[in-house]
Amino acid sequence: MSERVYFDWNATAPLRPQAEAAVLAALRVLGNPSSVHAEGRAARHAMEEARQQTAALVGADPANVIFTSGGTEANALALRPDIQTDAGGRLGVLLVSEIEHPSVLAGGDFPASAIVRFAVDENGVADLDDLGAKLRRAVADGVRPLVSLMAANNETGVLQPVAEAAQLTHAAGGLLHVDAVQAPGRIRLDINELGANLLTLSGHKLGAPTGVGALVRSDRRLHFPRPLIRGGGQERGLRAGTENVSGILGMGAAAEAALAELATEPARLLGLRERLIAELRQASTDGVVVGAAVPRLPNTVLFALPGLRAETALMALDLEGVAASAGSACSSGKVGRSHVLTAMRMPPRLTEGAIRLSFGYSTKPTDIERLVSAWKMVVRTLVKADREIAA
Amino acid sequence: MSERVYFDWNATAPLRPQAEAAVLAALRVLGNPSSVHAEGRAARHAMEEARQQTAALVGADPANVIFTSGGTEANALALRPDIQTDAGGRLGVLLVSEIEHPSVLAGGDFPASAIVRFAVDENGVADLDDLGAKLRRAVADGVRPLVSLMAANNETGVLQPVAEAAQLTHAAGGLLHVDAVQAPGRIRLDINELGANLLTLSGHKLGAPTGVGALVRSDRRLHFPRPLIRGGGQERGLRAGTENVSGILGMGAAAEAALAELATEPARLLGLRERLIAELRQASTDGVVVGAAVPRLPNTVLFALPGLRAETALMALDLEGVAASAGSACSSGKVGRSHVLTAMRMPPRLTEGAIRLSFGYSTKPTDIERLVSAWKMVVRTLVKADREIAA
Repeated sequence: MSERVYFDWNATAPLRPQAEAAVLAALRVLGNPSSVHAEGRAARHAMEEARQQTAALVGADPANVIFTSGGTEANALALRPDIQTDAGGRLGVLLVSEIEHPSVLAGGDFPASAIVRFAVDENGVADLDDLGAKLRRAVADGVRPLVSLMAANNETGVLQPVAEAAQLTHAAGGLLHVDAVQAPGRIRLDINELGANLLTLSGHKLGAPTGVGALVRSDRRLHFPRPLIRGGGQERGLRAGTENVSGILGMGAAAEAALAELATEPARLLGLRERLIAELRQASTDGVVVGAAVPRLPNTVLFALPGLRAETALMALDLEGVAASAGSACSSGKVGRSHVLTAMRMPPRLTEGAIRLSFGYSTKPTDIERLVSAWKMVVRTLVKADREIAA
Repeated sequence: MSERVYFDWNATAPLRPQAEAAVLAALRVLGNPSSVHAEGRAARHAMEEARQQTAALVGADPANVIFTSGGTEANALALRPDIQTDAGGRLGVLLVSEIEHPSVLAGGDFPASAIVRFAVDENGVADLDDLGAKLRRAVADGVRPLVSLMAANNETGVLQPVAEAAQLTHAAGGLLHVDAVQAPGRIRLDINELGANLLTLSGHKLGAPTGVGALVRSDRRLHFPRPLIRGGGQERGLRAGTENVSGILGMGAAAEAALAELATEPARLLGLRERLIAELRQASTDGVVVGAAVPRLPNTVLFALPGLRAETALMALDLEGVAASAGSACSSGKVGRSHVLTAMRMPPRLTEGAIRLSFGYSTKPTDIERLVSAWKMVVRTLVKADREIAA
């Protein structure tokens, strides 16, 4: 049997060689970064370099990078009613798009009664009219809003109108949080151009190990008076606990590599994506590329085939040596009905047969060929079996 | 100059070779443990083995190990008024000893008004009479208590009367949380023998990388309806976020190694400790071993010398190639007045000159010799200089 091919990069990306080297070096750094002796200072110094690398990826000031245990924790830290800014009081309502990651939908420290969802259209793009209406209601009620809108959806790859949402949010006196875990290295990302006040990054989506991420602030005056994890004074008092030094160094190295290839990699990925789509459409003429009408990440294809059952197809693809998924991996391993596709009002006969194919920096054209040939075999068998049962 | 010697194990321990090997292997595991394909299943399988290794270290059921990003997060997760058990309602008061780690003193999700401290005696041992009185007051007020008492203090190494505290706490209808980060591998630790309902472990104190820890439950019916970090269904819904696979595998390997050497290592460490104490007392006859009258961890010596200033002594030791500390590392790198020694009512002239020397599995008798000769040189210079200034 030939080597396996991995098309589940949006769940987790392979470790970048640069990140691996940084992790290995870090494992030999002995000290606790809070210690004042030479060992501690060496750990701190290495960590501060990683902070600069991470900040550079999103055009931020290194002082505004708060390292966390991952994207989920960064989202939980960001979504707090008591975030302090120079102007404006307590945040009274959290507006989240219907297609956010579960860790955003959970609402952080907002009570369930203060979390309001705004809609997406049938392409999976956040509905700015709906957001605008909900912001006006907050203003009318004298309530300051926190808005959370992801940069790109993890299941569809659809890019979200973050800069426009930032303008609307700021005009309403609110703050904008952007869960950007799927974006870096795939599209350009600048916290100030986006107008985001807070931005979430995940290490392992970038090619660092799992277990590290960051919440990035646009402005160091943004302050968390009661952070999620309190205790020691690490991360400027905003995130207690001895830092994950090896993870952080891996994340810095991965961020640097992702930034360096930003001039060429998105176009290369887009070429692979378009080639994959053409092949899939040819093989499965009644298949649908979700979000095809709108701009998407260059590394993600969500392909829905009526009559296919995603669970069965994924098992068959797995046996053929292809790792793919039906959407988000962040659950208990069960394939449920996607809240993203439901929000897009896709009919169940399509959502049930939706397969996410996501790839990245080490994916080669031959991997696409392997995927397509496996796809053809699996679909031929499964759809045929299904039609025979229906007949 | 000869090689440096490291005496700050209570801040962070050197990576164990077994943990390093496990981390390196884990970095090559590609999948997200929540993914259903072969890569994901391999990651999950490896993680479950580490869960068994971690559970075995403290005599727990693997199903009751919740992996976190470290001891601080585990403490923050544990200290919640809404922990559900079979019997008994909401926890209305958090009783913490005065010498707990800052992440426990921060009180997790308890409001500041519901956090009450109980005293320690002049040896640094929790005062069970004071705890008992505060528990009786809670019972009289109809308030259910959560008690948090560490297994061993990080600064003094003094062992705490956890089993006795458990009896008192349970008699009052309460729950007991034990921050045990400094104990494993140094003393025997069994969650059921201790009577702890919740127990915190830290990977990097054990010889795993930083960035991983665990909260261990005594009983799977103990439930967190609103965990600290919510989103995906990882860790049985009790801790969301893609798991730190390499850290967790490192922690499992370190736990296994620590458990394996438990038959011999505590006695070996105790021998080193007694030798170190004898040498320090000979070199500095007016020095005080903090907690000398009571049982302590075999790897920790807090030595206080009147007339010495710890900050200056630590810098001088560092220049002599010795990494040591003045107490907890979990702060901003500043040496402040120790809340532990303050709680023990130690006079400032002693607390100002207290140096913590902590060591572990790879410490050799020659390291003790190096430390003692550096100590003699540093103390001679500094105390002399100080006396000249005072004269």
